[in-house]
Order: sequence, then structure tokens, then C-alpha cells
Amino acid sequence: MKVIRDPVHGYIELDELILPLIDTPQVQRLRRIKQLGLSNLVYPGANHTRFEHSLGVMHLATMLTSQIDSIENEEKEELRAAAFLHDIGHGPLSHVTESLIKQYTRERHEDVKPILRKGEIAEILQDNGLDPMTIAAHIKGETDLGKIVNSEIDVDRMDYLVRDAHYTGVAFGLVDYVRLIHEMKFYENKLVVNSGGLKAAESLLVSRFLMHPTVYYHHVSRIAETMFTRAVKHLIDKGTLDPFKLRRMEDDTLFELMRADDDYAGEIAKRLDERRLYKRALHVGHEEVGEGVMHYRGKVERAEAEIADMVGIDSREILIDIPKKPEIAEMKALIKMNGKMVRLDEASNIVATLEKAHFDNWKMGVYTLKEHRDAVSKAAREFFGAKKETTQYRFSDIEG
Amino acid sequence: MKVIRDPVHGYIELDELILPLIDTPQVQRLRRIKQLGLSNLVYPGANHTRFEHSLGVMHLATMLTSQIDSIENEEKEELRAAAFLHDIGHGPLSHVTESLIKQYTRERHEDVKPILRKGEIAEILQDNGLDPMTIAAHIKGETDLGKIVNSEIDVDRMDYLVRDAHYTGVAFGLVDYVRLIHEMKFYENKLVVNSGGLKAAESLLVSRFLMHPTVYYHHVSRIAETMFTRAVKHLIDKGTLDPFKLRRMEDDTLFELMRADDDYAGEIAKRLDERRLYKRALHVGHEEVGEGVMHYRGKVERAEAEIADMVGIDSREILIDIPKKPEIAEMKALIKMNGKMVRLDEASNIVATLEKAHFDNWKMGVYTLKEHRDAVSKAAREFFGAKKETTQYRFSDIEG
Amino acid sequence: MKVIRDPVHGYIELDELILPLIDTPQVQRLRRIKQLGLSNLVYPGANHTRFEHSLGVMHLATMLTSQIDSIENEEKEELRAAAFLHDIGHGPLSHVTESLIKQYTRERHEDVKPILRKGEIAEILQDNGLDPMTIAAHIKGETDLGKIVNSEIDVDRMDYLVRDAHYTGVAFGLVDYVRLIHEMKFYENKLVVNSGGLKAAESLLVSRFLMHPTVYYHHVSRIAETMFTRAVKHLIDKGTLDPFKLRRMEDDTLFELMRADDDYAGEIAKRLDERRLYKRALHVGHEEVGEGVMHYRGKVERAEAEIADMVGIDSREILIDIPKKPEIAEMKALIKMNGKMVRLDEASNIVATLEKAHFDNWKMGVYTLKEHRDAVSKAAREFFGAKKETTQYRFSDIEG
Amino acid sequence: MKVIRDPVHGYIELDELILPLIDTPQVQRLRRIKQLGLSNLVYPGANHTRFEHSLGVMHLATMLTSQIDSIENEEKEELRAAAFLHDIGHGPLSHVTESLIKQYTRERHEDVKPILRKGEIAEILQDNGLDPMTIAAHIKGETDLGKIVNSEIDVDRMDYLVRDAHYTGVAFGLVDYVRLIHEMKFYENKLVVNSGGLKAAESLLVSRFLMHPTVYYHHVSRIAETMFTRAVKHLIDKGTLDPFKLRRMEDDTLFELMRADDDYAGEIAKRLDERRLYKRALHVGHEEVGEGVMHYRGKVERAEAEIADMVGIDSREILIDIPKKPEIAEMKALIKMNGKMVRLDEASNIVATLEKAHFDNWKMGVYTLKEHRDAVSKAAREFFGAKKETTQYRFSDIEG
Repeated sequence: MKVIRDPVHGYIELDELILPLIDTPQVQRLRRIKQLGLSNLVYPGANHTRFEHSLGVMHLATMLTSQIDSIENEEKEELRAAAFLHDIGHGPLSHVTESLIKQYTRERHEDVKPILRKGEIAEILQDNGLDPMTIAAHIKGETDLGKIVNSEIDVDRMDYLVRDAHYTGVAFGLVDYVRLIHEMKFYENKLVVNSGGLKAAESLLVSRFLMHPTVYYHHVSRIAETMFTRAVKHLIDKGTLDPFKLRRMEDDTLFELMRADDDYAGEIAKRLDERRLYKRALHVGHEEVGEGVMHYRGKVERAEAEIADMVGIDSREILIDIPKKPEIAEMKALIKMNGKMVRLDEASNIVATLEKAHFDNWKMGVYTLKEHRDAVSKAAREFFGAKKETTQYRFSDIEG
Repeated sequence: MKVIRDPVHGYIELDELILPLIDTPQVQRLRRIKQLGLSNLVYPGANHTRFEHSLGVMHLATMLTSQIDSIENEEKEELRAAAFLHDIGHGPLSHVTESLIKQYTRERHEDVKPILRKGEIAEILQDNGLDPMTIAAHIKGETDLGKIVNSEIDVDRMDYLVRDAHYTGVAFGLVDYVRLIHEMKFYENKLVVNSGGLKAAESLLVSRFLMHPTVYYHHVSRIAETMFTRAVKHLIDKGTLDPFKLRRMEDDTLFELMRADDDYAGEIAKRLDERRLYKRALHVGHEEVGEGVMHYRGKVERAEAEIADMVGIDSREILIDIPKKPEIAEMKALIKMNGKMVRLDEASNIVATLEKAHFDNWKMGVYTLKEHRDAVSKAAREFFGAKKETTQYRFSDIEG
Repeated sequence: MKVIRDPVHGYIELDELILPLIDTPQVQRLRRIKQLGLSNLVYPGANHTRFEHSLGVMHLATMLTSQIDSIENEEKEELRAAAFLHDIGHGPLSHVTESLIKQYTRERHEDVKPILRKGEIAEILQDNGLDPMTIAAHIKGETDLGKIVNSEIDVDRMDYLVRDAHYTGVAFGLVDYVRLIHEMKFYENKLVVNSGGLKAAESLLVSRFLMHPTVYYHHVSRIAETMFTRAVKHLIDKGTLDPFKLRRMEDDTLFELMRADDDYAGEIAKRLDERRLYKRALHVGHEEVGEGVMHYRGKVERAEAEIADMVGIDSREILIDIPKKPEIAEMKALIKMNGKMVRLDEASNIVATLEKAHFDNWKMGVYTLKEHRDAVSKAAREFFGAKKETTQYRFSDIEG
Repeated sequence: MKVIRDPVHGYIELDELILPLIDTPQVQRLRRIKQLGLSNLVYPGANHTRFEHSLGVMHLATMLTSQIDSIENEEKEELRAAAFLHDIGHGPLSHVTESLIKQYTRERHEDVKPILRKGEIAEILQDNGLDPMTIAAHIKGETDLGKIVNSEIDVDRMDYLVRDAHYTGVAFGLVDYVRLIHEMKFYENKLVVNSGGLKAAESLLVSRFLMHPTVYYHHVSRIAETMFTRAVKHLIDKGTLDPFKLRRMEDDTLFELMRADDDYAGEIAKRLDERRLYKRALHVGHEEVGEGVMHYRGKVERAEAEIADMVGIDSREILIDIPKKPEIAEMKALIKMNGKMVRLDEASNIVATLEKAHFDNWKMGVYTLKEHRDAVSKAAREFFGAKKETTQYRFSDIEG
């Protein structure tokens, strides 16, 4: 038994299954994939990687499975492997490249069957008597047991909320995951939280709710990530970058490729390197623009061109960012109250409110160069029919 | 400038105003008043006192006032003094004796005018050019400026949430108070949170929401505190204890008085010392007993007698505990959104839900000796018309 | 399996052995014994008790024994019980009354045989198939296995250093106890640290070294504790207090007894309640007074009388405090380096220095009322032949 | 006033001087320089950068200068700028490339005069009425005031010890820097620690002492860094890399250059990416090899060739690593004891020991491929005249 030091969980034990998996190139690669993409432009400490997150998720899966007697030993090992390997399908900068990869390759990061089918990892798993395809199914959340690593309330969420809080320094990520884990059981093949875990489950959802606008959807990250994906798209469209290779790249290799470009992508890379970001010309909630704006999702380029036309600038100097409508899957998690299984949002008034509350935090953005800000603001406001002036964050402008 | 070490805030600076106040008997007495009453029966670490909390609140008041230019220096000093002295009116075991003291003396812990009118503290304040009566008014929250120390969102709440989390070990008390403080300002004589502080304000309310059932209203604390207050009432009713003196006593002096009693109070003291507590015969929410049960508040003894009659035991072996309906005052705090001052519950869906969600956590209890549990449970259920079986906490029975 | 929340270790698991032990009056009594005596006069947060420390030591003993295969299961249970019960022999205010109790009763706090011989605890232990006398021997450190709970490097020290740091807020108590525990093994019936644990063992010793002057021997604690023990001695000498009963008392009961005294003890109690402490008239190291001063240990009253005579005041207004010479037992702990067992001070230069370094921190004190400070200072300096002026702490006078 | 969130110090305030400096490319570049080089191969969390460290050092310099009245306001600003800019001369992977850069360019990272002489930073400084050359002299520690940022006990060390502990998860980096800062003053133009800061100063030195073998000189980091520097040297020697440009590069750009190499450097890059490191064939202290081994420092390649000859392998498959003899500069820091300024090692026995104790931790290494380990071990042992078998770390092999 060897151990590795982890700033979040203290020490993580590594056994004969995990040790050889660590030494595979696919896992070592995760050392070079930042967990929070470009959030370090807002939170300078947010340089943690998918590698340590994977260790943490495996650690929590070990803790959770060890206290459920109904799971067989071999199944426990498969779940631990699934927990450890659940992120090996991530592209560079984690979620930043995700929609782009999906758009061009139809592959999602949870689809790891191609990676597990053969090769070093598959051999290690088979040597330990484990089935790679079962593990891939766990990772995708297709199995009952796999809900432990991929479901409404899973060990993945528990680790990343606490870990992201540690590295950003934000106070909101505190989840009572030890208690939550102790209160999780399988009833009738379903992963269920006991009533004694209700408060802990609420704390997880509330933590996500507070982390979202503060960290995950911080407007500066959104601006930088919108710039970044547009530059990567530029490289794909001009044939410099194969989208199927993109998925296997690492943060710095992709950045170097962008820097080497002598056109739009190179310019954006330089801007990101020097933190000369586009600015918000419009940053409004659904109450101001109406939900109809969602129709523009996936086809923002036409809108960008039209607004650019109105202002008389190059359309590449305008970036529109329309995040998807938040869905709070955790609500559907099951909790056992007074002997009955109910949905979390039926057991808790605060959970029932969260989906609506999350949508309150939702904001779309139109970003442009500093010098075009006023003109683009006016045009975009007109284009989207936005009602009123919005307030900017003031306290933490440097954060954003 | 001297400093004192504080586990929550690191170091707290003490100046020429605070240092002599620390040395008064009224402040030193707070060293012997536990912040969380009998919660240490559930959370062994919860032995912190009103003294360190008072230092913490003063520290935060200093931080808050120092960044508001519109407050005069003398006013700042008065606010800092008010923050430091805001709890000198507390009776033994803090809130545990509060309703009893109010019932017998009509005095509330925020009424500190009698203490500040004359004596050592008054002299120190006057020597520093400060007006004791203004400070007393601040403490009562009667002034505009006083909202800093006593209002919907004040430095008192900020300190106790974080401090209680530190000493209980509960993960929920994390409030982003530094940001909240930086976002608080006075507009038109009203204490207002800027829109940039919305998430931090939400975190404060959510923290209170999660701390309530987990710590402040944990059923074991409620049982112990119900036992304790009934024993103190016994001492008052038999003339052993002057209710006006009670307010000036300290935890251990009152406990010793109880231990010296050779009747009910002495027996309860021994039970508390040895943690042989009454058990829950009934522990139900308002959905099960209806809100009508509130009518019994303040007159539980008749109900106890009736249930005791039904079971055929001594009525002192039954204790009924009906907490008041929660009010979430923080909702009325003002926040400045898009240039307008609105109430927090108008600006935030999650805040709007909290009052209802808090009431979901509300539970009344009927407690009795272990041996009478089943009989009392049946009788109490009948008496209060409770509908169905309730689940008990399982994970943390020791905590409860 | 039940759990209890602990601010230091997170969650502590309680099993069928520990749960009934918790419910005994002897263990519940530890809730009312402060771990650090009167240190809360310096560090307002230091109100933690022997009860939670006992839980923590049991937790670490469980961790340590669970990874040593050579210990039988029954032995592990005995060690865990010993860890949990190791402090039940402590008098009020922990170490503060220790030398007094020893002086009058010849009993030391590790002598728990009388408590374990019969009664509720003995029955619980025997019901679990464990031998109370073996456990008593473990607590005294008389057995090989008992070194886990009482020896140079034991789980007792690990818990209290980290716990005292948590509650005082002092940064020095950080010990890498998880690693140290993982590196401890038995070789030839001796508890030994592997070479991989050398740095962690050094960290434990260094932590103790830094905690000593900052917390454990802080001069304000020493003054308060010297005042306190002299007042208790007064009660014993006048027959008010039976020294054999003293050992079974609790902090507040003893304090109340002092407060009820209408002579010296009552006056000291009032002073301690109001934090009107004696002041340092002399506070010097061995370089200034020579080691010869050690001869006065145990017979300070004559010296007090002589100095009082020189100044012309009541001898009770002078208190002399001569701590014993520090011995760093940890040096004798065994460590396995290159296959050989050597003493820790042979394996580590820094450890070899610590005994000398500790003695550098050693200081004797002569304390008196503020108004006699100058006169007593002069007389005491002459009496003890102290060489030069000493500097006082300045930064943290409030702490001291 | 804007603020930025920092996981170590909470919030860091940014004013009109620091804000524009942040936006310069030279400072933004520090976001892409890891603070601890390749330590993330041992501690997965150690991905923090020189950027956040620079913010932290500036924060501490602000705290320190704000409490020293004798420093003029303009001087304070210059010191704060020096603190913020002190690391802009660092090459990629911080100290990893330092000796190589020095060897080829004669430039040290503290020499920032060329960077500050003209350009954007110089203009910002001059716009604020500050002299860039004074700031450069502060950074080099050539001025009296500059001792705050570069001397035996400076704010640089305080920040990095605490920060490195936070990100590695190692418990040893806890320094009471708030107290230390409060105890630092200038007497007769010398930066001096008051006697009240002695324990805090000791804690800083002890922290460094414990962090050294555990983090900074962990053998796995040493192996990886020796491999890395040898590969970079290969690129320089073959003309692929201009050493003067090296100093201005960033971690990922240099790594990409290595990866693009189709010879030795490319192979090493692949090994580092996949964590297939050289292994220790010899890892011994000075007691085993004698201090004479120091003569090989700077000319290890001849020794590598000779050992390779003895074994019959390519000399590039052997890497010799002889760290320099530790010097503990902090010992020369001044402390004011009883009115006199003395050196820290004269005031503290433990400090006096540290230089010797540090040398105990010193180890030289001979690293090679796994398959040659035994043969190289034997040859190297013979070559260097090493006496006996050494023990390997066991507990944490994954860390190393």
C-alpha cells in the first residue's frame, strides 16, 4: 500500500489496482489538463488538474463502496477503476473544448469505450480480473452501480466542489461529503440517500448553486473561454487542427498550436497570454432578453455578423455567448423519507427552488474590444431587445 | 496596539478603547458563558464563549466601519464599542435561559441600558468621549448605524456562523463575510448590500438555514435545554433563585446551584452531568401536527399534565418543547440592484424560499424517560393528533 | 457504528466498545475538565476538554493498531480502551492541580487502577472480554504495547499538539501524524519509527518545542495557575478541601468552592474571574539566575517569606514559580535507520539540540501585585542573584 | 481599490500601482511559470505559479511596511513594487533552469535591471513617481530597505513556505508570519526582529528545514529536474535553443521545444510526460561519500562517463546530481534581545543547529535506467567510495 499526499483529502491510498493505472500515458496526460480551464485568469490559484481530481474521486468511491455490503468485491474494484478513469476522455482545458469536440466528432468526454477497448489500461484491468466495458458503462452512468460515479449526486461532484473551493479560495464549496457518503445506500438497485443525509445533500446542491456564478460561470472565464473556443474553431476550419486529434491533446500543446498561428488564433492566444480580454458589451439575464434568445444557441455567428454590420466592424471582434439553460439533475436524486423513496425536490423546499434560482443566475454575454464597447452595447441591446441597463460587478473587477 | 490570537480571524487588534473594556468584570464574565449553551452534549468541541465571539464581532465591525467614509470617527468608535458589548446582557448558557429571564423579568438580552448607565464601563466609554446611551441604542438596533451590529444582516451573525462552524466541526458555516462586508454601504441612512454582494448574502442565509437543524435546533440540544430550563424554573418557583439575579449569573454558578438542590433540579443536573437525557417520544413537523399546535406555546405544562394522566406517570417525567415559528429576518435586508433598493427576497429566488424551507425543518418534541417512551409516544400522538410515524436520525445518534 | 463530529479529525467512529464507555459518569466528567487549565486567559478559544481529546486519542490508536498485523484483535481493543480512558485520572483543570494532588495523595493521573478495578467501566470492559488491569498497565506505559498510548512518541502527544493548535489558533502544532502513524511498527517488542517517518517525528518534537513557550508555559498561564494552586492549597490546609476528593472534582465545582471562601482563596478566585492577575516582578532564564535556583523547587514559601520581609509586605502577595527542568523524552524514541534501531537523538541533529533549546526557553517567575512590582523586582533580583534586566513581551501583552 | 481572491491570504487588495503592473506581459508571463518546477510529479497539487506568489509577497510587504513609521510613503510604494516584481527574472520552471541560465548567460534571476530599465513596467513605475533602478536594487537586496524583500528573513520566504504547504498538502509550512511581520522593525538602518518575534522566526527556519527534504529536495523532483536540465542543455549545445532566450521562455513553450526534438531531449520529454523516470542507483549523504564529493559539482559529466565506462553503457543513461552544501542565511538575521542586536543563531540554540541539521539531509544521487540500476549502483559506489547500503523511502514511494 502506497500513499500520495492530497491537499483536499490528506492522504490517498494507492493499491495494486491503481498504481499501474497511474503509470499509463492516458492517466499521466491528465496532469496536463487543468480542471477549471481558464478560470485561473480570475482565480490565480485555480491551476489544479484532472489528475488529482481523478485520485480524489477514486478515494471517495473507495470510501462509499467500502460501506455498502451488497456490492461484491469485484464490483467495488470496477467502481473504483471507473472513478479513477472517469475523466480520461476529457479534451484540453476540460469543459472548454467539450462542445467543440462534440460538434465535430460526436464524441462526449464520458464516452471512453474507444480508450478502454484495448491497450495498456485494458490489459491492467483484465490482469486484475475486471471488465473494461463494464467500467466504461459505469463511467457513462448506464449501470445501476455506476450511479456512484455518474449520477445526480455522485462522488465526482463531491470531489470537484470541495477541490475547486480549495484552489480558488472561494468559501462556498464546503460539502459535508463524509456524512453524505455514509448515508448513501442501494435500495432495489437504486442509489438512495437516507433521510439522515438530507441536510448534507442540500449542502451539495447549495454549494453548486453558489459556485456557479462565482466560479464556473464567472463572466471573465466565460469571455476567455469564448475567445479560446472561437480560436480553436478557426484552426479546425482552416485545416490546421484535426478535431479527432484535438480530443487527445493537452492544454499546453493546444496553446502552442494557437500561438504558432499567424492569423486570428495567434492573435487570440497572444491576448489570452497577456490577459487583454474582450469586454462585456452586454451581459444580461433572461428577464431582460426573454427566453427566446435561446434560439440563437449554436448559431451565434449570424447574430455576430449582423451586430458587426450595425456597428461597422469586423464580425470577429464580436463574440456572443449564450450558455445553456441550467438543469439541476440532483433534484431527481432519490431520498428515503419515512420509508418511502421520493425525489430530492419533493423532500426539500430549498431544492425545489434551485432550478429556478439557477436560471436567475443565468446570463448571456456579448463581448467585444474595449474601443467598440459602447457601440456594440447599443447595437446588441437593440438586436436582442434587452430592456434596461445592467449593473457591473464592482468589488471584484480584477476577478472579472 | 496589542493583539490577541483568535482561531477564526487569526489576530484581533485591541486598541485603547477596547483594552480597558476587556478588563471590566462584566466583560470578563462572558468568558464563563458558553456561546452555544448545551450544544457540547452533541458537539464535544462546542465550548466556545461569548467572550471570544464579542471580540470577533468587534473585529468585523472595525473592518466594516473602516471602509465607510460617511461614518464619523466618533460614531465608528461607538459602533465598535457596541459590537464588543452587544452580548453583556446575556444570561447563563446564552439563549438557553433567555425566554425564562424574559418571562420573569421582562428583560431581553439586548436591553443593556441598565448595565451601561453607570459604573466602570460607562466611565471608560465617557473617558473616550463616547455616549453610553447611544451605544445601548445601537445594541438594540434602534439606530440607523446600529444596523451594523443588530439587523437582518449584521456582523453578529457573520461571526457566530463562522465561529460555531469552527468549534462544532460542521462544514456549513462558511460565509464569505469579507466580501459581504466590503459590499455593505449606507444609502439614505439605510444599511444596504451592493449587488456585487448578493451571492455572499445568499451564502449567509443558506449557512443559517443549514446550521439550524444541524446545530442550533439539534434535537439533543433541545432535549437538554428543555430539561435545563425546567429545572431552573423549579428553582425560581420554589424561591431558591431570584430571576433578576439569574440574568447576572454564569454557567457554572447556576449549574452548582442546581446540583445543590435535593429535588427535581438536582436530579436534572445529575442527569445532564452524566448525559442521561430524556428521549424523544414524539418529534414531528408541522405537517404532521398542524400549525394549531402553536397555541400550546407558553402553556405546555397543562398538556404535559394531561398526557401524564393518560399514561399514569408523574407530569415532570414529560417535557413538551414547541419552538417558535422561524422568521428569517434577513429577507428584509436591503440590496441595491440596478440602482434600486429592493428587499433581499425580491432579488433572490433562493432567499424567497428560505422562510418556507426553515419551517420545514421546524419540529416539536415530546420528551420522556426511556422506560415511558412507548406509552408517552402513543398518548402524545393522540393528544396532538399527529398523523404518521416519523423517522429518527440514524447516522449520528451519538450526536443526538 | 455511530459517529461523532470532531473539529480536528473530522468524524470519529464509535463502536460497541466505546459507546457504553462514553456513557459512564467517569468519562462524562471529562466534559467538564478543560484540557489546557487556565490557558483560556491567554487564548480565549482554549476551552476544549479532556473528553474530546480522549476521543481523538482513541481515534489515533485505532488508526495505528489497525495497520500493525502483529497485534491480536483483543489486544487492539485493549489499546483502544486504554487510549480512550487514559485521562480519567486527571484532576480539575488537568495539569494545574496535578502536582498538588501528587503532593497530598501520592497519586498521579496515570494511576487509574483504583478507578478501573471495579464499577461500571470495569463491567463494560469485562463484558467485552477485556482485562481492566492490562488496560491500566497500558495507560501507565508499563507494557510494550502500551507505548502506543504512553511513551516518548505516542498518540496522546499527537492529538494534543494538533488539538491545542486548533483551539488556541497558534500555527505551531502541525504534526504530520498520519504519516508518523503509518511509519510506526513493533520490532522485537519495541515500538519503533521507520526511517521514512524521521521527518514526521522531527515535526512532532519541533512542534512541542514551539508550543511550549507560546502556549504551555506562557507566562500569563503560569501566573494564573500559580495563583490558583496556591488558593487550592489554602483550602486544603485549612481543612475545607479533602485532597483525595479534589482528584475527583471538576473545574467549576472547585472554582465554586474557592469563590465561597471568605479569605485568601475567595480573593484569588475573584481575581481570576476578573482577570486581575499578579504581575511579573522577575521573569528570568537559567543563564541569569543559575541552575542553583532549582534547589528552591518545592520549598518556595520560605523564599517568598524572605522576599516579603525585605519589601515589608504580606508574604501571600508574592508568588514564586520555578518550573521543573525540561526533559525531552521523545529523544529516547527508537527509529530504524539502515536496518539498525537507534535513538531519535542519534539519528537527528535537530532532535539532539532540542533538550538544550528547551532549557533556553525555561524561565522562573516571581509574581506580585502591581503596586509592589518595583520593590519586589529589586528584592527578588537580589535574593536570587539575577544578573541583568530582562525584556518583556511587547506584541502580545494581552496574551500575557 | 480592487481585490483578488487568494487561497492563502484570503483576499489581496490591488491599488492604482499594482493594477497596471498586473496587466504587463512580463507579469502575466508569471502565470505560466510553475512555482515548484517539477514537484507536481511528487505532489499532484503543486501547480501553483510565480504569479500568485508575487501577489502574496506584495501583500505581505504591504502589511510589513504599513506598520513601520520610519519608512516614507514613496519608499513604501517602491518596496511594494519590488515585492511584486521580485520574480520577473525567473526562467521557465523557476529554479529548475536557474543554474543553467547562470552558466550560459551569467545572469541571475534577481538581476532585473535589464527588464526594468525601459519599457511598459518602467513607464508605469515612473508615472507613479517611483524609481525603477531603486526597485531593482531592492530586489537584489542591495539596499537596507530591500532587506524586506530579499534577506535572511524576508516576505518572500514567508509567502512561499505557507503557499507551498497549501498546494502540496504538507503540514510543515506553517509559519506564524503575521506575528513575525508585526515584530520586524528598522534599527540603525538594519532590519531587525524584536525579541517577541523569536519563536516566530524560529518557526520560519524550522519550517524551511522540514520542507527541504520533504518537498524542495525530494529525490523524485531532483531526478526529474536533473533529467530536465540535461535535456535543455542538450538543446543549447546543439544550437536549437538560445540561452539568452531561454530566460524569457515559459514552462510549456520550453516543454514543447523539447518534445519537438527527435533526439535525447525529445526522449527525456516523453519520459517526463509519462513519468518514466530514471531511478536512484546511489542516494547517499556526506557521511557516506565524504565532503570531497563536492569537487565534482559543475563537472559531473566526466564522472558520468567514467561510471558508464565501468558498466559499459551510454553515458547519457547516467545522471549525477550533487546539490550544493546548504547555507542557512537566516541565521545571520538580526534579533534584538535585551536591547542588543545579536544574530539569530546566537539567540537561539535551535537555530544554531540548523545548518548542521540541514547538511544531514543533504544527499547526492546517481540516477540511471531501471535496467542498469544494480550495475550502476555498484560502479557508482566504488567510484565515489560510498561506505554502506542506504535505506530507501518505503511509505511514500509514489511520492518518490
